[in-house]
Formats: sequence, C-alpha cells, structure tokens
Amino acid sequence: MEKWVYTFGDGCAEGDASMADLLGGKGANLAEMCSLGLPVPPGLTITTQASNWYYANKMSLPQSLKTQVMQAIETIAQITGREFGTGDNPLLLAIRSGSRASMPGMMDTVLNLGLNDQTVLALAKQAGSERFALDSYRRFIQMYSDVVLGIDTAFFEEVLDDAKARFELDQDTDLTADNWRIVIERYHELITEESGSPFPQDVNEQLWGAIGAVFSSWMNRRAIAYRSLHNIPESWGTAVNIQTMVFGNRGNTSATGVAFTRNPSTGENRLFGEYLVNAQGEDVVAGIRTPQNLTEEARIAAASDKVSMEKLMPDVFAEFGNIARRLESHFKEMQDLEFTVEHGKLWILQTRTGKRTAKAALRIAVDMANEGMLSRQQAICYIEPSSLDQLLHATIAPSAKRNVIVTGLPASPGAATGRIVFSSTEAEQLRNEHKAAILVRTETSPEDILGMHAAEGILTARGGMTSHAAVVARGMGKPCVSGAGGMRVDYQTGEMRILGKVYKTGDIITIDGSSGQVLAGTVPMQQPVLTGAFATLMEWADKTRRMEVRTNAETPHEAKTARSFGAQGIGLCRTEHMFFDAKRIAIMREMILASNEEGRKTALDQLLPFQREDFVELFEIMSGQPVTIRLLDPPLHEFLPKLPEEIAEVARAMNVSEDVLRQRNESFYEFNPMLGHRGCRLAISHPEIIEMQARAIFEAAIIAGEKTGSLVVPEIMVPLVSLTRELEYVKKTIDTVATAISSEAGVQFEYKIGTMIELPRAAVMADKIAGSAEFFSFGTNDLTQSTFGMSRDDAASYLPDYERKNIIESDPFVSLDLDGVGELMRIATQKGRSAKPDLKIAICGEHGGDTASIFFCESLGLDYVSCSPFRVPIARLAAAQAAIRYKS
Amino acid sequence: MEKWVYTFGDGCAEGDASMADLLGGKGANLAEMCSLGLPVPPGLTITTQASNWYYANKMSLPQSLKTQVMQAIETIAQITGREFGTGDNPLLLAIRSGSRASMPGMMDTVLNLGLNDQTVLALAKQAGSERFALDSYRRFIQMYSDVVLGIDTAFFEEVLDDAKARFELDQDTDLTADNWRIVIERYHELITEESGSPFPQDVNEQLWGAIGAVFSSWMNRRAIAYRSLHNIPESWGTAVNIQTMVFGNRGNTSATGVAFTRNPSTGENRLFGEYLVNAQGEDVVAGIRTPQNLTEEARIAAASDKVSMEKLMPDVFAEFGNIARRLESHFKEMQDLEFTVEHGKLWILQTRTGKRTAKAALRIAVDMANEGMLSRQQAICYIEPSSLDQLLHATIAPSAKRNVIVTGLPASPGAATGRIVFSSTEAEQLRNEHKAAILVRTETSPEDILGMHAAEGILTARGGMTSHAAVVARGMGKPCVSGAGGMRVDYQTGEMRILGKVYKTGDIITIDGSSGQVLAGTVPMQQPVLTGAFATLMEWADKTRRMEVRTNAETPHEAKTARSFGAQGIGLCRTEHMFFDAKRIAIMREMILASNEEGRKTALDQLLPFQREDFVELFEIMSGQPVTIRLLDPPLHEFLPKLPEEIAEVARAMNVSEDVLRQRNESFYEFNPMLGHRGCRLAISHPEIIEMQARAIFEAAIIAGEKTGSLVVPEIMVPLVSLTRELEYVKKTIDTVATAISSEAGVQFEYKIGTMIELPRAAVMADKIAGSAEFFSFGTNDLTQSTFGMSRDDAASYLPDYERKNIIESDPFVSLDLDGVGELMRIATQKGRSAKPDLKIAICGEHGGDTASIFFCESLGLDYVSCSPFRVPIARLAAAQAAIRYKS
Repeated sequence: MEKWVYTFGDGCAEGDASMADLLGGKGANLAEMCSLGLPVPPGLTITTQASNWYYANKMSLPQSLKTQVMQAIETIAQITGREFGTGDNPLLLAIRSGSRASMPGMMDTVLNLGLNDQTVLALAKQAGSERFALDSYRRFIQMYSDVVLGIDTAFFEEVLDDAKARFELDQDTDLTADNWRIVIERYHELITEESGSPFPQDVNEQLWGAIGAVFSSWMNRRAIAYRSLHNIPESWGTAVNIQTMVFGNRGNTSATGVAFTRNPSTGENRLFGEYLVNAQGEDVVAGIRTPQNLTEEARIAAASDKVSMEKLMPDVFAEFGNIARRLESHFKEMQDLEFTVEHGKLWILQTRTGKRTAKAALRIAVDMANEGMLSRQQAICYIEPSSLDQLLHATIAPSAKRNVIVTGLPASPGAATGRIVFSSTEAEQLRNEHKAAILVRTETSPEDILGMHAAEGILTARGGMTSHAAVVARGMGKPCVSGAGGMRVDYQTGEMRILGKVYKTGDIITIDGSSGQVLAGTVPMQQPVLTGAFATLMEWADKTRRMEVRTNAETPHEAKTARSFGAQGIGLCRTEHMFFDAKRIAIMREMILASNEEGRKTALDQLLPFQREDFVELFEIMSGQPVTIRLLDPPLHEFLPKLPEEIAEVARAMNVSEDVLRQRNESFYEFNPMLGHRGCRLAISHPEIIEMQARAIFEAAIIAGEKTGSLVVPEIMVPLVSLTRELEYVKKTIDTVATAISSEAGVQFEYKIGTMIELPRAAVMADKIAGSAEFFSFGTNDLTQSTFGMSRDDAASYLPDYERKNIIESDPFVSLDLDGVGELMRIATQKGRSAKPDLKIAICGEHGGDTASIFFCESLGLDYVSCSPFRVPIARLAAAQAAIRYKS
Repeated sequence: MEKWVYTFGDGCAEGDASMADLLGGKGANLAEMCSLGLPVPPGLTITTQASNWYYANKMSLPQSLKTQVMQAIETIAQITGREFGTGDNPLLLAIRSGSRASMPGMMDTVLNLGLNDQTVLALAKQAGSERFALDSYRRFIQMYSDVVLGIDTAFFEEVLDDAKARFELDQDTDLTADNWRIVIERYHELITEESGSPFPQDVNEQLWGAIGAVFSSWMNRRAIAYRSLHNIPESWGTAVNIQTMVFGNRGNTSATGVAFTRNPSTGENRLFGEYLVNAQGEDVVAGIRTPQNLTEEARIAAASDKVSMEKLMPDVFAEFGNIARRLESHFKEMQDLEFTVEHGKLWILQTRTGKRTAKAALRIAVDMANEGMLSRQQAICYIEPSSLDQLLHATIAPSAKRNVIVTGLPASPGAATGRIVFSSTEAEQLRNEHKAAILVRTETSPEDILGMHAAEGILTARGGMTSHAAVVARGMGKPCVSGAGGMRVDYQTGEMRILGKVYKTGDIITIDGSSGQVLAGTVPMQQPVLTGAFATLMEWADKTRRMEVRTNAETPHEAKTARSFGAQGIGLCRTEHMFFDAKRIAIMREMILASNEEGRKTALDQLLPFQREDFVELFEIMSGQPVTIRLLDPPLHEFLPKLPEEIAEVARAMNVSEDVLRQRNESFYEFNPMLGHRGCRLAISHPEIIEMQARAIFEAAIIAGEKTGSLVVPEIMVPLVSLTRELEYVKKTIDTVATAISSEAGVQFEYKIGTMIELPRAAVMADKIAGSAEFFSFGTNDLTQSTFGMSRDDAASYLPDYERKNIIESDPFVSLDLDGVGELMRIATQKGRSAKPDLKIAICGEHGGDTASIFFCESLGLDYVSCSPFRVPIARLAAAQAAIRYKS
C-alpha cells in the first residue's frame, strides 16, 4: 500500500530535508527540524503523490489516504494530549499547502480547524479566555468559508463592519466576547443563506473539506499563472501539511514573527526580523499593526519606541537565536524562519532558504566561506552569475515610487534619467551642455552609435533582446529598454505617444534596463560598489576557472571598463564601429561609392591614419594582453547616406550629381543583407579594404609596442567564412601586407590569423578551415541566425507566440540553443581539433556572457569566452562554476 | 632514366589509347591505331611530363629527352627509308601539340620541318615537282617564322601579295616554281631583317625550336583562357607529337579530309565528312576552297557538282570506310577522323571521340545498343543528362543569324520571340489578342506570376540562375534570361536601354534561355521531338533507376506537362503560387491585413473553395500518383499591395482608410524576409491559415477520390521546421482538421504529414524531428542559403568574383555543395533513418534536377527526387546513371 502520509513531532519524523519532491519544501524541512529536536508543532504531511492521484481520479482521494491521515491525527492527539473534535482540550489544526518549489501565497491555507459550536466552549475554558476562543472561531469560519465553501469574504467583512458600526468600535481587537458571539451567529446565518447548508460542525468533514480545497488550489488561476511564469511543472503537485495549531495571540507572553538568519539586503551576519506581540501570523501579513524589531540593535537603528523581542522576551530570544544559527549551519544557507511564541513557549513553524539581494548573497557567500561553513568552491557556486548585473550599474533605489508609463524588454541593465531626444545630433548637443539625454528611436542602426554614446540610456519601440540597440547598449554598459511596443515615435514632430499621451523632446523620463520599465520624471538611484565581498569572490573565481575571459570592445572607454572588470584581453574588436564618426563616415562613403579601385584606394589612404590611431590606443590600453580584431563585417550599404542632405553632402564631396549618387546608392540594395555581401565576401571583392585594415593593425602594433615596451601580437579575425579558400585568400592578402610592412619598417613582428565560425558550413568544414586558421571564435549570433534560418531583427513578430505556445523554451539569441547550434559547435570543435590539436577556440557572440552558454563552452573545452565589458564579471564567475562542475 | 619519348609506326607502338594522361589524346590514339595495324605516318610522342619539366626548369629541356628524341628520329628514318636533313629522300616532320583534353587550335603546330635550302632540292627531285617542293618550303618558312621566331605573319602575307601583284596572278596555286623561288628569297631577307639572323638551315635547330615553341604555347593567352573556361588544370601539360609528313597536295591522286563515323547532327549511322583533292589540311581549315562530299549519297543530297571521294577514289574510300567502322567499334564511340591520301595511299592522321548534338547522341546511343556495340546500361551512361534540355524546348535554328543586343544568364532553356511588355497586365492583354509577349522586368516577384504565365518568355535585368524569375520560369518550362546587367528598365516610360539604345513596349525581341542571349527581332526556330530514340532511352533509364522522379508543380498545366515527361507524382506543390490570381489576391490581402483572427477567418472562408478546387484538379490530373502539398511558405508581406492604386483598392474593400492600411502594411516589413516570419512560423502564429489549407486538401481528396475512383492519399509538407515542437504543433492542428472532416463527411481517409529539411538545425535534429514526420524532403535552396549564410537573390554581386578568383568552383545554388550542404544532408539522412528506418526521404530543391546532385542523392539512398517539369527527363536519366554507378 502506498505511503501517503509522513508524521513528525516529539523529536522524531518519518521524513527529512532531502524529501522535498515528495513532501514539498515546507513538509521536508518541518520533518528535518523535528528530527533535529527543534520545537515544531506536531503534524503530518500528505505527499505530492496524493495530489497527483487526486487529479488523475476526478478530484477524489484514495481510501488508504483517509485511513493513514486518521491514524496520524490519532498519533498527534497522543503526543499533544488533546482530542480532535471533542473533550476539554480540543486539538486544533493548521492545514497548509507546500509544493516542491516555493509558491508564496498562491495556494490556500485553513487555520484553527477543529473548532465548532462545542469545541469553542472547551477552548474558552482551557485557554481561560472566552474572547480568544470566539475570535479564533470566527477567524476559522471566515477562512473556511472562503477557501472551502467558496463564499466571498466581502460578505463577512460587511457583517464585521456592520457590527463595529453598531457597537461603535474601531478595531477588531476592541470587540468583546459578546460582540463576537453576535458576529458568529450572523456568520452562521450568512453561510446557510449563501451555500444552502449550515457551517459543518463535524470536524472530520471540516478536515476533508480543507484537504480537498488545498489540493484544488494547485489548479487555481493564480497558481497556474505562477507556475507558467516560473517554469514549474504541473506534474510536481502539492503536498498538504497538517499541524497542531499554536497561538501567538494568547496575551503578552505570546507573539509571532519572521526572521532571516542574516540581513537579506546587506548580507550582514546579524539576525534580522520582525515580530508582533499577541498576534497571529496573518496579522503580520495584513499589516494592520506595525511590526516590532527582533533585536535591540535594530530597534535603536530604526529609532523605534516599540520594545524589541530581545528585551521583551530575552530567554525566548536567546533560544530562537540559537535555533537560527543551528539551522543555518545545518543547511549551510541563510534561513528564512517563521515562529510563534505561545505563553512563553517558542515554536518554529517554517524554515527555508532566504531570498536576498545580489549584494547580500555575495557578502553571505564570502562570510560563510571565511567562517568555515562553506568551502571557497561552494561559495563560488553559491551565486547566480547573472545576478551580478545588479551590482555593476546604477539602479533605481528600492524605495523609489515607480510611475510606469510603458514597459519594454530589459535589454541592458541599469537605470538612467534624462531628457528625451530623438536623434544623435540632439543627444550630442545635450552632452555638450552637460545635460543627460535618453535617446528614443523606433529602432537603432549603426548610424546611431554616436548618439548612443552621448546619451545616458536608449529606448526603442522595436527590436528584441539582441536587437542592434540591445547589443550595442550592453557593449557600452548603458541602460537600454528595447521593443517597447506600446510606444509610437514620430521623428517629424519630435514626439512619442504612449496610450494617447504625448511625450515631447526635452521631457524627462527614466528607463530601467533591468526591468524594462520606462518611468515618468526623475527617480532616486543607488550607485554600484565593487570592492569587498565582490572583489574577494571574483579573486576566488579567477583562481578556479580554466577558461579565460576576454571582452568585446572597440572604444577606449569600453576597453578600459572591461579591463577594470577583469577582462584578460579583447576577444572581439568590431572595426566597423570605428567608421561612424562624422569625419570618417564621409571618407568611408566616398570609398564605398567610388566608381573604381583607385577611388576606393584614395579614400582608404585617408582612413588609414584614423584606423591606425584607434588600434594604437587599444593596444596601449590592453598592453600585455591579446587583442583580437575582426575585419570589416557589415554590408557596405549600412554606411551609405540615407537622408537627402547626407546624399547632397557626399555628392558635393565626390563631385558627382545627386542623381548619380542615388543610383549608386541603390545598386547596393540587398533583399537579405544578413545573408548578403558582407564579412570576408567584402574582403574578397575589395581586397584594398582589408589591405588598409591590415596595414593599420601592423603599423599600430609596431608603434604601440615601442610606446609600451611590450610586444603586441595582434590577432586578426576573418568574419563570415564558409569556404576554405575564402580564408586562404584573405590570409594571403594579409600576409602580403605584413611582409611589405616588415621590410618597409625593417622590423619583424608576430601576428595570428583566425576565423569566426558563424555559419553552419564553417562548422561542418572546420577540419579543412583549421588548416589556415590559428584560432576559431564562435560568432553565435550569426550562427544562431543561420542555423535556425531566423533573423534576430525580425523574430520579435513570432517568438513571443512561440514561447507562449511552448514551441521553444527560451529566445535562442539570449540563451544558446545547445541541441542545434550547440551540436554544430561540438562538430566544429571536434573537427577543428582533429585537424589541429592545439587550435585555440573561443566564443565571442552575445552568448559569451550567458551562464548556461558558458557552462556549455567549458564542457566543449573552449579556451576563452569573450563578452561585453559589463558581462565580464558574470563570465568570470560562471567560468569558475563551470570549471568546478566539469572538473574531471 | 625517365622515359620521355614513345615511338609508333610500322604496326607497332610503345603507347596505347589508355595513356592519354601521359601522351595526350592525339598521341595515345595514334599509338593505338598503329598497334591496330592502321596506316599511321610513323612518329614519336614526347610526354606531358616533359612539358611539366620544361616549366619547372625555366623553360629548358632535359638532356635525356634530347637523346631519346634523336634515337626515335633515327628509328623513324629507318622505317621510312629517309634521312633527316640530308640525302636524296629527306625526312620531313610535322610537329603538333596534344594535351589530355582537346583544346582545338589553342596551341601551335609546325609542318614540313626538315626542309632547308639543300633538302628542298632533294625533295624537288624525289617528288618530281620543283613547284611542290618550293611551295612546301615556303609554307614551312612562314609557319616556323610565326610560331618559333615570333615574326608577324602579316609581313609574309605582304611579300606574297606584292609578288602576286608583280606577276599579275590571283591565286597562290597560280604561282610557278620560279615565282616561289623569288618569294622564298624575299622571305629569307625578311627573316634576317626582323630577327637579326638568317632562317636556320640546321634541321636539328629547327626541330628543337619547334618543340620548345609547342611547349611554350601551353602558356599562351588563348590556351590559358581556354583552360580556365573548361576547367582544365595547368598541371596536365601538353605532349608533342612528331610525325612523318604526308602530303595531300601532290596532285589529283592526293587529297585530305575529315570525317565522322556517324552524322553528328542527326546521329544517323552513315559516314559523314568532307575532303579536298590536292590540298593540305590547313587548306580545308582556311576555307579558301569549298570542300567536297565524301559520299555519293551526301553529294546528291547537297546537289553538289563536285565529285565525291566515293566516286573519285573508290578503293581508298572503301579502305577508309572499313577503317572508320573498325575504329568506332574498337573505341565504342562515334569517331572524328582526319586523313590524308598521298599518291593514292591512305594515311590516318588523327582519331578522337566526335562531338555531336544531343539529338544525335541519343540516336547513336540507342543505335549502338541495338547494334550490340554497347549494352543498354552503357547506352544510358553515354548521354550527359543535362544535354536533354536542348531537346525539350523550341530552340533557335543552328543556321539562324544572331543579332545579339545583350547577354544575361541562361536561366531557363529554350527560345521565344515576342513583343516587349513590362507588366503582367500587358502580358495578359497580348495573350488575349493571341500575340506573343516577352515579359521584361528588373526582377520578378510572386506578383508577376500571372504575367509570366501569359508571356512566352521572361527577361530580367537582375537575379541569378536561381532568382525568382529563373526558378519559376524553369517550373513553367518557359525560356528565361535573367540578370542581363547591361540593361536598364524604366517602367514609367515603358522603355529599356541597352548600351544607349532604347527598346520600347511592343518592340519584338527573341530570348535564348539556353545561351542567355537576347536578340533583336524574330529568329527561325526548331521544335522538339520526343519520340524515337528519346523515348527508347528513357524507357531503358526507367527500368534501371532505383529513385523515383517526381515534379515540382502547382498549376494544372505544369502537372500535365510533368506527367507527359514521365513524372511519378508531385513532390512539391507550392500553394502560395495559387493566391496570386486577381480574384484571390484581393481576398488574400484582406486576410493578411485583417486586424483580428475573426477577420482572417472570414477571408479564409472565401479562399477555401478556390484552394479546394485547385487541389481537386491537381489530384485528378495526378490520379493514382502521390501529391505532396507544401503549406503556405513565404512571408505574408509578399502578398501585400505595393502600388498606390492597389492600396486604395484594398482599403476600399476593407472599409478602412488608406493611411491605416499603409501603416498595417508597414508593420509587416522585415529586414531579412528570407529569415523572417514564414514557413511553419506562419502556421504557428496563424493556425487558421493552415486549418483552411488542410480543410481544402482533405475535402479535395474526398471529391477527387470519388471522381476518379482512385484513393487519394495527400502528403502534407510543413516548411521551414527547425524545432521538433513546430512540427508537432502543426501536425496536431492538421490532425484536428482531419478528424473534424472525417466525422462531418462520414468517411475515413488517409494522409501523410512530413517536413522540409531546409535549415541546418533541422538537419542536426533530424532524429528528433523524424519522430513526428512520415517523410523528409530536402529543400536545398533554403538549406544552401542558410548553410552558407548566403542569399541567392543577393549573391550575384560577389559570386562572379568568387568564381573568377577561384574561391568557389560553381554556384552552389546550381550545383549542390556536396562538402557542406551535402554533409548536413548526410547527417540528416543518417539521423532520420536511425530514428525511423523506413523514413521516406527526398529532395525537392532546384538541385533535384541537377545531375551531380542526383548522383549524390543516390549515394545517400534517397527515395525520390522532385524537380521542375522540364527537368523530369533529365532526372530520370541521371537517376538511372546514378543507380548504375552505385549499384552494389
């Protein structure tokens, strides 16, 4: 016969903490505490299996369950010396849900079960307080009617309000026993009216009603929605915990409270919590009375005049403190406790791992390791790497009031306040006036780079988590909210409309890139702190990890930021971003629109010094570390003039008619630019472009090497290779430039040539391609696009539907698709290393900063990951965790 | 010591026909003929290895070669009883190139070598004709000076013309011995003037000069260009053949000629050729005299008054006929022969496989099989499948004069003449007037489908071999020239400009889709004949092949055509092509632009009867054969109105403002539509669309089944699947419709659901996807695009550069990339069958009609290939050849 019921109490228990799947989190921990000899009100847990049986059998319960429950209640009655539904000392029960994962407040609870018109009299006598007994009874009736009988609580509120008006009383606590007796009588009538039958006096009927209601609540709307949000499978089911009631509302030696073993905001190792004298748990939650501090220290800090528990009940407080420490070191985790004191006797009602801020988590992990509670490796694994994001940016103060006007995607974390601008020009103008701007665009393109640099934050109406705006903003470490679909931008009038409301150029807004919210006006902020526990944990992580962490950076600012965040080099410098400066873009356009190679060369000669200077600066900043430079990648039309005045300007500069220019412009049009004339395809049709780039790189390496006294070995990366001969051709072109410069300058220098693996063909041909490559770097953005045949810029129109309909688990542009894209990476790694065992292999797509993806990279044995500067600490931690996981 | 020289003559030879790599094609066959005892002038072949040695050693020759050549010359001298450079009977030599592959006229030849001021006297005496000897000498001097000394032939022409003027003579043949003596004297002076030294009198110097010149000519411009055009590797090198001279110009018992063992135009089994009495080979080539017929029959047919060889030299003719038959049955190939008759003695100078038309090739293959010369399998392998294309379409008569105005890509074979139109409307109008139209567009889109149907042929300025125009035209079997870059189309003025010349609407042009040429005006045509040898060979192929051949067809016309070409079902019916009809497109647009599901459903209800009727017709035409229907694939914006009048019309029909419609229109814009919201992604966001399609298919299957009395089992194909759950979702939707219809109609019916494998992710996940698929069909167009990350619509801007720079061997959209795309197909096939051993797997991309790709499909063990109707015969033949190749 299946065991449906597990009892606990009196220092022993049938279950333990490891059985959360079967007993739920709460039930498993109650059993564990009981076995530890802690004061837990005796009770029983009905397994999650029973919940599944319930749903598999038309919401009925197995007979064997009923027998087991009744036996367990008998045991509890014996332990407590009470009787269920009868006698002088009636056994009252609390019925609570308890699933494997915490689902706070989503399911139902019934307290004080076992009271009826008879037992309430016995309770009054036994407790020596008629008022207490009647108050408990009416609470039970209200709760039971709501949860089990489905009668709207508003009816009961109305009765109570009527009574208070009639008795001319303000607070529930002001009602006397007689008052309550009248209220309860009215409750009984109400129930008969609403449900057609009287309130059940049979305590067993009460019990089975409550158990059924808890099981049913697993499928209520809130619970279903919560599970869907948190990816909790329906099949897990819920357990039911049935426990002896204890009362915190039996006078001034009774109390109830919640506590964290450490401060959940700061992580400080001090007991942190609140309590209320003479109250039940629901009173704390309801917020009718202001809770009191647990400790004297906290009371003083809060300048509260309400007595602390430490002062009021020093013995109980000391016992609680001991229990809290004991539970923390038992579970090796900061605990979140619920307790009740009944007539000076402490009862622990729940313990679980406490939620905390990222900052607190860091401090706790480091402290626990220093205290010897955790090893350093455990401390490293203790922190969710992505939670560090909160620490690296200014954020909206938790206390701030949020006037949300629209919500988009949390595209790049951190918050920023500034004036709305709709163009790069305006953003730059405001920066010159030392005013903060938020750049608002329908979507951004490479032309907006300067404006993005000048602005404090970026807001777009279109585009996903990996849209241009999102990727570039993350790279810059600027807050960004993308794809705020509820917003319409009108560049002509300089307005954006949200739900009919108009926001104009110059209006102040705040964007929260961590939540996706856009707020009206200014909002208080808090600044990041990267010393202390953060620095310590990062140091431990660095000693533990096998993979290196580099950064994707092209500006000096990004490179410096990344280095300060611990980057070990640049893994991806996108050279195209260097051409959008006003001076350069004009020359770039002349180069592209030149009608022959000579014209292109003339323009390229002008670009050379700029490009060289860029590289010199980067090499200096990254001195002693490797710098990987990707050759020009995007299709040339991304650089072309689009606005009439730009076309006019370029036409003037080139001394051709605007019509001719417009026609040449059009000849660059592509149906699918992502699959177009870009990457190494440009290098092959216009070798003069990469000749210029190679020259700039080598000359810069020589100059920077002399300046810093440290040899620069540039790594040149060829994008979008699919054919072996593409790489061979580009390599030959670069080698020729290197030879020429070497003899011009009379110096020898070293460099490496490698390739992006970002097309499926490159992945399956990796053994051949490895022949000409000194390193591989997975460009997982493009690889994901081509493997899925899915443009990340266009996917927003159907991906949400995909997630809703459960077709895909997560956006593959955010979290690497291990099955498909990962399989191609596995093939490429295996083939590449089969041809060249010491081939250096890395990842430099957006996924390089994603924890799950980094774990996958470790499992493949990659050499390094490269990510945007603000993801570097995340990657360092994730790489350490991955090294621990995959340590052979 | 390396053997550089192979001799032949007097019935024995050191080489044979299998040694073409070493001896070149000519040398190997001369050796073979010699061993067969045929009358071949004795000689020697210097190997292609010597040519490679020559280039590897600064254009010098190994000493051992010189020794071997001199020994071989000695042997020849002994056989012929002559002496080289001396004596009464001087040995004269012909020095000819001869590479592994035929490179007609690309390299150099020197004849009559061995003549000098002394030997010419001996020759005169020996031949009994001073004039003959001097004529031979002056020819030698001219040729040698051109080829070896590099003196412009124009100088010699001038001397000769001067002389003829002086002697008042018209023809070279009119010159007497004395005249020639004067000319030769002047030649000698000329050479000394131009080269600084006199004409070499040392015959050995002559010989080595000529050998060096032939080797050098391997790297002349013409040869390099020819090799690049025909993919002949430089490393093959050329052999040099040195043979005893024989003379066809020693009077009326001498002659020279060329012959084919069968008619190269028709394939008829009759000797076919031309000869000239008293002439040398170069005279036939020079075309100064009109050649005579070989056979009496041909002379009569040509109504020639010049005597045939059969009549003039009956014995020699008979001997030649025997030799021709003997060579043909020896090589089992139609032969192309060169011969010379010297004083009534026949000499064979060359034999090689004869070039022929596709029509002739078919007839020859079938005849040879029927004659027992070839097995049927050999006959099948005898024909290059793609050559059948010539036979299936009307083509420009070979004799026609071609006034080419521009050249594009040969996108769809066949030729068509018609009036220029620039829009579908005009094309339809002309069709209604029973006039032929050529639809001219910058590029076509699905909107042009009706115009393409109405026109006789399609001409576009942009787009490659697999552009929309090309693919659709091939599907329709209409001639198409695409990507004629030299042409500019102006829709507004109704003009196209080519090199400054203007062609207007209504002007007549002819397009040749087999060559890519566009011709002015009308041109004579010839019509296809598909009976006789064609039908016989196809029947043999059908009995031999393992793979089935289906067709890609959506219109009744295409389906009928394909069936008449032997298709065994439809492998791909693209349903989107069914929505462009004027009546339907309006409803389609309403459906797409509807603001909610209800609006879409209303429009879909109107489309249902059309779609059902389409399928009923297709099922009827294909009765008894499988029909695979692909669900809607392209992004919806392809259907949207673009022109202002169209927008106005749709707005009216939908009762919304044009502005609203324009905005909705814009919301469908995609950056990369190829990677966008299309394929099964549409089915998932708008299941109502495929519900309509599934309903139409099933209802049509029931109706057509009843009409034809033959059960229809539709195969429904889901496009663009990359995730297992996409297919599961669509399958579930279709199954639900099927269940509903089954109960509505009260009948049971069968159907199959499968998927395209056209994305790399689908290929690597094929084992999982196979779980929900009853068949796979490789969509190699999309698979190539996504594997390479290369849009076929945009590749024209760099692919030509790739081919020129030898980065890629051929357009992967035309010939399947076996290494990359093929590897993914191999993975998919292996994984798919590992999960479901009897999974039916096919190909339905453009490559389904490409010979090399079909061979690859056979090697993978695919079940069928599907291609456009006009490729069906090609596929049938290629599949048969592939089955023979891979027969275990």
